[in-house]
Amino acid sequence: MDGAPARGGAGNDPAAAMISLIEQLYPICRSITGDGLRQSLRLIARELPSLALHEVPTGTPVFDWTVPREWNVRGAYIATLDGRRIVDFAQSNLHLLQYSTPVDRVVERAELLRHLHTLPETPDWIPYRTAYYSEAWGFCVSQRQAEQLTDDAYRVVIDTSLAPGHLSYGELVLPGERQEEVLLSCHVCHPSLANDNLSGIAVAVALARRLMAAKRRFTYRFLFIPGTIGSLTWLAANEARVGLVKHGLVLSCLGDGAPVTYKQSRRGDAAIDRIAAHVLRQSGAPHRVLPFTPYGYDERQYCSPGFDMPVGCLMRSPNGTFPEYHTSADNLDFIRGDALAHSLDTLERIVAVIEGDGLYLNLSPKGEPQLGKRGLYRPIGGQKEAGGFDGMALLWVLSLADGKHSLLDTAERAGMPFAAIRAAATALQEKGLLAPVEG
Amino acid sequence: MDGAPARGGAGNDPAAAMISLIEQLYPICRSITGDGLRQSLRLIARELPSLALHEVPTGTPVFDWTVPREWNVRGAYIATLDGRRIVDFAQSNLHLLQYSTPVDRVVERAELLRHLHTLPETPDWIPYRTAYYSEAWGFCVSQRQAEQLTDDAYRVVIDTSLAPGHLSYGELVLPGERQEEVLLSCHVCHPSLANDNLSGIAVAVALARRLMAAKRRFTYRFLFIPGTIGSLTWLAANEARVGLVKHGLVLSCLGDGAPVTYKQSRRGDAAIDRIAAHVLRQSGAPHRVLPFTPYGYDERQYCSPGFDMPVGCLMRSPNGTFPEYHTSADNLDFIRGDALAHSLDTLERIVAVIEGDGLYLNLSPKGEPQLGKRGLYRPIGGQKEAGGFDGMALLWVLSLADGKHSLLDTAERAGMPFAAIRAAATALQEKGLLAPVEG
Amino acid sequence: MDGAPARGGAGNDPAAAMISLIEQLYPICRSITGDGLRQSLRLIARELPSLALHEVPTGTPVFDWTVPREWNVRGAYIATLDGRRIVDFAQSNLHLLQYSTPVDRVVERAELLRHLHTLPETPDWIPYRTAYYSEAWGFCVSQRQAEQLTDDAYRVVIDTSLAPGHLSYGELVLPGERQEEVLLSCHVCHPSLANDNLSGIAVAVALARRLMAAKRRFTYRFLFIPGTIGSLTWLAANEARVGLVKHGLVLSCLGDGAPVTYKQSRRGDAAIDRIAAHVLRQSGAPHRVLPFTPYGYDERQYCSPGFDMPVGCLMRSPNGTFPEYHTSADNLDFIRGDALAHSLDTLERIVAVIEGDGLYLNLSPKGEPQLGKRGLYRPIGGQKEAGGFDGMALLWVLSLADGKHSLLDTAERAGMPFAAIRAAATALQEKGLLAPVEG
Repeated sequence: MDGAPARGGAGNDPAAAMISLIEQLYPICRSITGDGLRQSLRLIARELPSLALHEVPTGTPVFDWTVPREWNVRGAYIATLDGRRIVDFAQSNLHLLQYSTPVDRVVERAELLRHLHTLPETPDWIPYRTAYYSEAWGFCVSQRQAEQLTDDAYRVVIDTSLAPGHLSYGELVLPGERQEEVLLSCHVCHPSLANDNLSGIAVAVALARRLMAAKRRFTYRFLFIPGTIGSLTWLAANEARVGLVKHGLVLSCLGDGAPVTYKQSRRGDAAIDRIAAHVLRQSGAPHRVLPFTPYGYDERQYCSPGFDMPVGCLMRSPNGTFPEYHTSADNLDFIRGDALAHSLDTLERIVAVIEGDGLYLNLSPKGEPQLGKRGLYRPIGGQKEAGGFDGMALLWVLSLADGKHSLLDTAERAGMPFAAIRAAATALQEKGLLAPVEG
Repeated sequence: MDGAPARGGAGNDPAAAMISLIEQLYPICRSITGDGLRQSLRLIARELPSLALHEVPTGTPVFDWTVPREWNVRGAYIATLDGRRIVDFAQSNLHLLQYSTPVDRVVERAELLRHLHTLPETPDWIPYRTAYYSEAWGFCVSQRQAEQLTDDAYRVVIDTSLAPGHLSYGELVLPGERQEEVLLSCHVCHPSLANDNLSGIAVAVALARRLMAAKRRFTYRFLFIPGTIGSLTWLAANEARVGLVKHGLVLSCLGDGAPVTYKQSRRGDAAIDRIAAHVLRQSGAPHRVLPFTPYGYDERQYCSPGFDMPVGCLMRSPNGTFPEYHTSADNLDFIRGDALAHSLDTLERIVAVIEGDGLYLNLSPKGEPQLGKRGLYRPIGGQKEAGGFDGMALLWVLSLADGKHSLLDTAERAGMPFAAIRAAATALQEKGLLAPVEG
Repeated sequence: MDGAPARGGAGNDPAAAMISLIEQLYPICRSITGDGLRQSLRLIARELPSLALHEVPTGTPVFDWTVPREWNVRGAYIATLDGRRIVDFAQSNLHLLQYSTPVDRVVERAELLRHLHTLPETPDWIPYRTAYYSEAWGFCVSQRQAEQLTDDAYRVVIDTSLAPGHLSYGELVLPGERQEEVLLSCHVCHPSLANDNLSGIAVAVALARRLMAAKRRFTYRFLFIPGTIGSLTWLAANEARVGLVKHGLVLSCLGDGAPVTYKQSRRGDAAIDRIAAHVLRQSGAPHRVLPFTPYGYDERQYCSPGFDMPVGCLMRSPNGTFPEYHTSADNLDFIRGDALAHSLDTLERIVAVIEGDGLYLNLSPKGEPQLGKRGLYRPIGGQKEAGGFDGMALLWVLSLADGKHSLLDTAERAGMPFAAIRAAATALQEKGLLAPVEG
């Protein structure tokens, strides 16, 4: 049942494991419903055997929305009247406007052009376009392909079905000591796009596998959902547990070569906002922290005013800011193993703060305790810096452990990495100088 | 009774109308009391027929002050002993130190020089000086005029009267849906100075004429008052209504070529302070926002600690910061029609925020409402930006309409002009997705 | 009993008086206990006759610490086996590692080197090192001295005693109108180091002599204590009075040529933090304001979380940041009379704010009072600036004297020196326009 042993080698090389999963998922035609989505979730479940697969019927009301009909594609093409297929879904699943209704007829060139989507500025790239909630059909083609459509008429075949069915999504819960949850959400509804959706999925899977093997203070919930309607569906089914989510991240676009970007939650001052900013600042690497905007990924739904959840978004290049975004150029060549590994590492540092933060009390708060007699301070005085076992971290923890400053507060004020402050707190706890604040 | 028809043409060209009014007012010798002030108020009343003219008797106590004697001038000059007038009030009303007591005698040159005010650094300009609250006489002359006074003695004639009378001021109230008021105050006590007092009067009149024709949520009160003693007099007579003033602006120096300057109220965080800063920032034009200081125009009185009203000051060049300030060079050539029109436009944008701001509730706050089915979102997805009818403005309003963020808050956080946010709110209200918070 | 007359000359030249005291203290071998410390306190008591000398027995528990054995030195040297003394405590008291245990034996070169402390980067300087709380012996020598130790063995003699005795410290209390206290603390435990400890002592003594002769609103407490264990000892004996300390400063390194540095209290927003920042900003001179860190001087103890006192630290070069720090180069040549005088002046300006600050009420708060009729405003109006007796300071005080803004708040908001605001407040008080808020 546990697929881990079979992938032991890749487990030691997280970049390779993530690339491998992305390569398996890349060819599949995902959408917000349908068999491609189901097939993808089953591939993810091979990595995460405890993944629960949910199926929500068409027509289910979710707040202001309704779960749509299920869309499946058997094939689609534009052919010349003598039968030569010149645009074919079998070549690239981006060619078909998502949720296109069935068509099988000859159309005049002028009409066909009105149903074509192109990117004139990058004439070799195919755009990715959707029409989930409107009755429409269309093809997405490169500008060069469009320019070669010079016949008077073409045969258009779209062999799709739009019928009552289900919306599918995957959910993995890793229980911790506490009921309070950390939510990690990624969308799984984009077809052959590598950075936008597959990189987020791969990083989420890698983190989940790490956490499966770890002691956990918080409960972790991973959602693999179609964008917008998927998060709305989960929210509608789980309103009662929204309040349990103490920290959340939407994961997307984590495989490109840009610096890490953290987009804040709507609150702007949620714990996750401070934690992510701390980890990025302390990384020493270039990074960006962006304020919330109500456009982007599923943080739009989690942060809607009726929920206002503490959910930010971790990316490298943000949606809409790189030329390859939502085009055929967001392919396997666009993502990099080192970028995926760095994204995972950043995410793990964020999780380490979530797990390790807390309020503590200095048990010897009047003056400094004598660290030297406990082996925590150098024996010879007079040097310029505080010495011994990371002397400044020890002094900072003692100074701020008044039950009002968390270890993250301490790290921020000290300008030191959380890990150093956490290690000092552990050392002081072992010497009986520090105790966690209960409750 | 309504003078508007007669000025229909100028009404369509606000700059021309303002210049025309300034040209009529310029030659008059105004002071803090007297017939010049009365004549000016009557000219203003031709534009604003509902203007109430108040007369407050000399000796009336106003807080720590007393309404002074009324000052009127029939003429004043310095003549050579053979009768040649070399400095004459008839040439420029700036020549006479305001509130000069009557004089008619021959004075020796040395004594005369002690009564002369000049500006050595700009030797062709006449300064503007006052002695309202001290028994004094004097002349203001150019440095070149002063240098030509080489005779041993001169005849000095100051034909003024200082006698019990009245302090005059004008007040226009435009009632709105609400009792709460917006106060607009300008001083009308300076003689032939164009930017300092006449530009503020002209912009106030133009705004009042616009508002007379408009639907008004707030009640608008315009004051045309002598500086300091006039605002004190109004405050003393209207203490009970001070609390009704929710927003206020002193208007002055609005005709010169400098960028717009907003000087904050003493509070610094009053709504008017945020509104003015927003309008200036969104204008894209150079501008300045200055902190409150207890020197300047009548904001000194409105913002005194016993009232601490939410009153800022809108200017272009602030008082005391331009060379022409309080000199004969602040004349009709110094002011510009385009600057007056831009000042009026800025003021109207401020009024638009005052009128249009408010708290709203998103009526579909759990997740985003489905804008597409209401015609508020583009039918084809996948593009980089939120689409449809000003998509980002709609999303921002929905995101922050939680009854805690005003539309101005929303505009500020979105970094968008208030007008765009206001339009989005109206569209959402029409679709039943948004409702104002009552009370 | 009062030593002042004998030093009248130096009293008029504070730099000379401070230098003279430093020169007397410099040769003495101070430590955290012992006769050198006692001798130093007696020299200070000649300047401050009311200084109380405290003796606290070895073994007295102070929080997590214990008053150590008393350490005294009769002599110490390293000699060649033929009797030539090549390192001698009599040459420099820095040569002996403080709290070295007694030794009298021949040691092989390799063992001796393990007991030597040097500064390879400044090969002519002797470091200052201590071993208060570990059983150890050692010598501090220049790198050049260490390199000349080429014999196979040397005779080492350390003629010290470590025995039950006392910890000594000095305390001066200057009572004021109020019980609330200002604490001024300096360490007196360093041997021949001029900037680090003697400059702080000299400035503290000079300030105390000034305050002895002045009317005082606050009570002033001066502590001359060994570092760390001395402040802990005082705190342990005075826990009940910690709450009376409203402002405090640790004084150190006040004689070097660097700009003044103020290190904030742990609170960061204590009154002393604002006062010091104001004085430094208004000085116009280069300066630094540093955030609190839990390393440094006795502010570490005063600001420990169990006390969290409003105590900052006034320095020029901070500890550990200048090459001469804790070396023989921190000698009499390193300190400057002008720097000591400027430090004293800065400290007196801080004290002037502490003494002069307060809340006031404008007794004529509705509109401005008429300053002209009280002789506080120029008689002729129209100039660019507020005139008369420091017009802007008067207007600022009147504007903010609402019982909520202190005079320091007023000075900060006006961007004016506290002294100007204080003078304006006094002038307004004399005219009956201002009254202090009681209680």
